[in-house]
Amino acid sequence: MENNEIKQKIFSQSCLAKSASAKLATLSLQEKNKILALIAESLYVNLKEIIFHNEIDVEAAKTAGLSQSLIDRISLDERKISTIVQGVKDIILLDDPIGSLVETLKPATQISVKKVRVPLGVVSMIYEARPGVTVDAAVLCLKSGNAVILKGGSEALNSNRIIAKIIYSAGLNAGMPEGAIQFIDTSDRLAVQELLRLHGLIDLIIPRGSEDFVNYVKNSSLIPVLSHGKGLCHTYVDKDADIDSALKVAFNAKCQRPSVCNAMETLLVHKDVSQDFLTKICNSYEQAGVEIFACQESLKIIKNGKPATEESWSTEYHDLKISIKIVGSVQEAIEHINKYGSHHSDAIITKNEENAKRFANEVDSSAVLINASTRLHDGSVFGLGCEIGISTQKLHARGAMGLKELTTTKYIVEGNGAVRE
Amino acid sequence: MENNEIKQKIFSQSCLAKSASAKLATLSLQEKNKILALIAESLYVNLKEIIFHNEIDVEAAKTAGLSQSLIDRISLDERKISTIVQGVKDIILLDDPIGSLVETLKPATQISVKKVRVPLGVVSMIYEARPGVTVDAAVLCLKSGNAVILKGGSEALNSNRIIAKIIYSAGLNAGMPEGAIQFIDTSDRLAVQELLRLHGLIDLIIPRGSEDFVNYVKNSSLIPVLSHGKGLCHTYVDKDADIDSALKVAFNAKCQRPSVCNAMETLLVHKDVSQDFLTKICNSYEQAGVEIFACQESLKIIKNGKPATEESWSTEYHDLKISIKIVGSVQEAIEHINKYGSHHSDAIITKNEENAKRFANEVDSSAVLINASTRLHDGSVFGLGCEIGISTQKLHARGAMGLKELTTTKYIVEGNGAVRE
Repeated sequence: MENNEIKQKIFSQSCLAKSASAKLATLSLQEKNKILALIAESLYVNLKEIIFHNEIDVEAAKTAGLSQSLIDRISLDERKISTIVQGVKDIILLDDPIGSLVETLKPATQISVKKVRVPLGVVSMIYEARPGVTVDAAVLCLKSGNAVILKGGSEALNSNRIIAKIIYSAGLNAGMPEGAIQFIDTSDRLAVQELLRLHGLIDLIIPRGSEDFVNYVKNSSLIPVLSHGKGLCHTYVDKDADIDSALKVAFNAKCQRPSVCNAMETLLVHKDVSQDFLTKICNSYEQAGVEIFACQESLKIIKNGKPATEESWSTEYHDLKISIKIVGSVQEAIEHINKYGSHHSDAIITKNEENAKRFANEVDSSAVLINASTRLHDGSVFGLGCEIGISTQKLHARGAMGLKELTTTKYIVEGNGAVRE
Repeated sequence: MENNEIKQKIFSQSCLAKSASAKLATLSLQEKNKILALIAESLYVNLKEIIFHNEIDVEAAKTAGLSQSLIDRISLDERKISTIVQGVKDIILLDDPIGSLVETLKPATQISVKKVRVPLGVVSMIYEARPGVTVDAAVLCLKSGNAVILKGGSEALNSNRIIAKIIYSAGLNAGMPEGAIQFIDTSDRLAVQELLRLHGLIDLIIPRGSEDFVNYVKNSSLIPVLSHGKGLCHTYVDKDADIDSALKVAFNAKCQRPSVCNAMETLLVHKDVSQDFLTKICNSYEQAGVEIFACQESLKIIKNGKPATEESWSTEYHDLKISIKIVGSVQEAIEHINKYGSHHSDAIITKNEENAKRFANEVDSSAVLINASTRLHDGSVFGLGCEIGISTQKLHARGAMGLKELTTTKYIVEGNGAVRE
């Protein structure tokens, strides 16, 4: 397509989405769930067709010499598609985020004022690689009453196209408003640039992909962006910690899945318990193959550590590596976390209620955990049941995000000919 | 000051604010209200000193030949200061927005998860002219547990400086953390540019002033911006309207204070009631000196109207001027409002519950009013009790904003050695 043709096509698709959004906002929970159920069924019925188109993408990726990990992310098989379909069924079970009463105000005059939850309007999901996101994005937006504009990565264009087609057609058959799902059918980079400009038509951009990609979207968009945040998470073992709990939690937070954002990167230990605790935990870490970077004080206890540098405290390893520091007080731990952390998920292990409360109040993070692993800060663990991610920003959404974060509010004022005096 | 000196000073003031914000977050309602009470008292006690410094600004403005309306906005007298002090006392009466439970989640595992309300951290208010904003901004931020960086307009620098000094000193005497209020003591434009860059230190920018000024801040800031939105508000008189109510509300919405954002700009009337209603309302408008721009159909009824153009439907008069259009259905009214409106405040006058519900659901505005004047969409009318404004954005804050919009949330997770399986 020519540049102008791309721009025009994206503009017209965005107009169609905008127009559909008004109808989507008025659908009942039953109507939305009926649409989602038929989408789930249709994806399963057309499983072979999806795999057929997916193989074209996978072959092209191999020919182009793309990395094995990227090819893995693109590839679909019967098991992966079943998991994706199960995800749709899980979203059917969630409460309707739309229409609920957020707040009843107490106005000064004789009117009633209610704040109710409504859809944002049009959401555009811009993502890389994994074709399953095409399904996630479509059903999350439908459930929250939003129209969606899907822009997937070029590596999965054939897979995304057939999935979008199946979803759209099933949706229409189940009563979904026309235009509710728009698929941007091009690999041209211009398409993303164009989407990021269309404020007034698109209400929210959700980027999913590499950190560079998300930063590009954030810095280029004229539309508000909701994105998953980076994680430099801490666990602080207090002087009043239950050492067995501390060992269990500190091991889980580092080792259960080190590559993810809510894994622990830095372990802070109160000096009074450092001898006992560090000896034991570093023994476990050694067995799990964890590489340790430790402060001078803790190196006196840890035999298998390398010296930490100033840089260590700012490093997200996302790997079997850890920074360890001995601190003199809960105060010092809080200051360290607020200075070096990414305001994502930070934990204290203590039986001292006062220290727990102080830590919870003063650590400036989206989630503070008391006697629990940072790995538990997660939408599915929290019962939010879906895959939008964890926000480290403070406006609109903070921490694990659910369907509510795809909504806004509206005041409904009722009077009986009420006027301003 | 040299450029580098300004940059350095602003950076160091922002660091002080950031450091104070951690302490402010932990103050109780009693502690905060004690600070506000002493600030109110001290402003009143130092009334003469404030007026003395204000006169320097007023004289300079006169010498510089600034407009009378600007000089009016800068000028303070005993009555104006009393009103400002009363505003502080009103804010003391508001509930504490901090620490309240927003939501209790239902996690899958044996942990408890609560979402609680916490301060944003550091808020910078950047404003023009009115020195009263120095007080408003400081006390709103204190009440919501935020540190504040004040950057007022150069025309009121002397007034703002003395007010900030009085507030800061009274605050400290009442136990306010050091550094909680930072006053940017320069008229250099560089100061604003510099503030807008300091993400990581400043959490929110609130611009107050002309539309051009607010747009400049929005387009230049690396920090989230919360601002007051423009208003192109509608009233739709349905075929099932109570005509007496409609006359009262349509007159109030246009004439009670035409210069403000929630005044009505366009009146839509169902064709079935247009003859009776338009004859009567235009008679009232004529007596009030309202200039009328009307569609071809309505010009057959209205004797004193000029023809409306396509541009009329997009015009915010903020004056005794109005656009009038006859429509064939509630559907047509909704489509007109969603196309031409600013998503601020839109009203329907009807006794028909179905039409009212449909209008409330389908009009995409921050407030929808049923049988009530658009002028009622206001923080003080709604009982929010303070002066942040009305947002037309959809993320974080929509519609009339209160203290809650100066806050964010935090998840507090409690376990008993809980880990991710």
